[in-house]
Amino acid sequence: MTDLATALNSAAETVDAELEALLPSAEGSESRLLSAMRYSALAGGKRLRAFLVLSSADLFKVDRRCALRVAAAVELVHTYSLVHDDLPAMDDGTLRRGLPTAHIEFDEATAILSGDALLTLAFEILAEEATHALASVRCELVRSLAAAAGCRGMVAGQTIDLDLENMETDIATITRLQQLKTGALIAFSCESGAILGQAHGHLRRVLHAYAHDLGLAFQIVDDLLDAEGDAAELGKTVGADEEAGKATFVSLMGVDRARMQARMLADQASSHLDPLGDRVEVLRDVARFVIDRRA
Amino acid sequence: MTDLATALNSAAETVDAELEALLPSAEGSESRLLSAMRYSALAGGKRLRAFLVLSSADLFKVDRRCALRVAAAVELVHTYSLVHDDLPAMDDGTLRRGLPTAHIEFDEATAILSGDALLTLAFEILAEEATHALASVRCELVRSLAAAAGCRGMVAGQTIDLDLENMETDIATITRLQQLKTGALIAFSCESGAILGQAHGHLRRVLHAYAHDLGLAFQIVDDLLDAEGDAAELGKTVGADEEAGKATFVSLMGVDRARMQARMLADQASSHLDPLGDRVEVLRDVARFVIDRRA
Repeated sequence: MTDLATALNSAAETVDAELEALLPSAEGSESRLLSAMRYSALAGGKRLRAFLVLSSADLFKVDRRCALRVAAAVELVHTYSLVHDDLPAMDDGTLRRGLPTAHIEFDEATAILSGDALLTLAFEILAEEATHALASVRCELVRSLAAAAGCRGMVAGQTIDLDLENMETDIATITRLQQLKTGALIAFSCESGAILGQAHGHLRRVLHAYAHDLGLAFQIVDDLLDAEGDAAELGKTVGADEEAGKATFVSLMGVDRARMQARMLADQASSHLDPLGDRVEVLRDVARFVIDRRA
Repeated sequence: MTDLATALNSAAETVDAELEALLPSAEGSESRLLSAMRYSALAGGKRLRAFLVLSSADLFKVDRRCALRVAAAVELVHTYSLVHDDLPAMDDGTLRRGLPTAHIEFDEATAILSGDALLTLAFEILAEEATHALASVRCELVRSLAAAAGCRGMVAGQTIDLDLENMETDIATITRLQQLKTGALIAFSCESGAILGQAHGHLRRVLHAYAHDLGLAFQIVDDLLDAEGDAAELGKTVGADEEAGKATFVSLMGVDRARMQARMLADQASSHLDPLGDRVEVLRDVARFVIDRRA
């Protein structure tokens, strides 16, 4: 196992423990809701977004306990988006992270409500004093995460994605879609360390530029894996894009050009980090990892 | 028209204008999402929660511009909850505020996503500097609203409500359900003025006690209207509770006892306000209005 794979696994374990502690235990007459929240949020996953939060926080020597709460909040928002995207009215997914999706394991109403509650919990966590001593920092985290996740970010991306089913499209449209759908939350993850560390705005913009290219590279590889991968290795429904008549980077560019484009974007992501000097080696490793991953 | 009815109408108009300004205009490739958000959020409604925010803010001489943003955020959360509750997988409502529900007017995916985006926008608004000069106040607004709306508040209430369909239940269970489902957001609305005005914790607790009884009285009257009202006057599907085999205050107590209980709770709500002296006349009027309303 490479050093980065070890670091990713170790961070994922720490974030899982943090989520375990932050999620209410499944008791009382609403235990079905709480069980569904825990089921989806603790189902594993690479925790790449959490890793980006922790790595960017390390750049600015942020207290690990604060960074972990932000990492957990980001993973709650990511989980809620997967739970809602998998609903029958949307992508109708049945398998996620190697397990039945929430509406299959529980029911549709519980899946919708557990997504709502995961999203709400993320903002509650960020606003609590334990996340940062300065309220102005906590407000900026709430504001930025809401902007990344809402109707000018992730939710807008999912809407455009659904609208494009069975429609002619082009690379520019898919690029904007993916910048919103996955890019905005990845960008928040990378920038959150700069927010927590009250870094100069210039450094936040450097991380934003890195995240922008990293997010697109990540999505192109996702499309490659969906086109080529097998469900057992990925732990989710594959070939779903083609079946839904969805244009992807791969259907528009072909496999070879898509792979080349992902590599170029990952290199470009790394090069944005130059002003930050040597301390960004982990983030450069992430860019390499994103294009080499098999799941 | 009584003075309170005039005040309610006037506040509703101001809040509608605030929402109109805060909601993004329906442009770009995500215009379907933005249209759905505007459709549900600007469909009118009594804006009772907004009125409670503004009235409690007036008690502490809070800048009206700040209070209006909080009032708008509360109405966004209330609207999102209605959009999701009306979904086919939940209460399957077709009429709301006199209009087709969001999933009928648009489609199910758009309804789910527009609810998600309305909830997210509420937190974004609260976290922005324009809501209050002090970041600590904005954080407390975010934290309290999230607590009221999430898995220990409104969403928990909706879960219990769905679980109780066709099940034997009792008044204690229905009371807890309604305290969560509608009471928690009404309580936040009443307390938000004390948060904005940095009032003593004691005064916040007085408003909480008032809101607790007001919320229950409000819900009992809702059940009475659902059992007796007609759809044209209410602007939403009626008789839905009975059809869904849902126990309500009315089915458990009978019409006469339910009406008496609502009146008693409204009186009790008013009496909690005694420590606040004369300036709370508007809130006492609200308690009377809540039990006399016909829609």
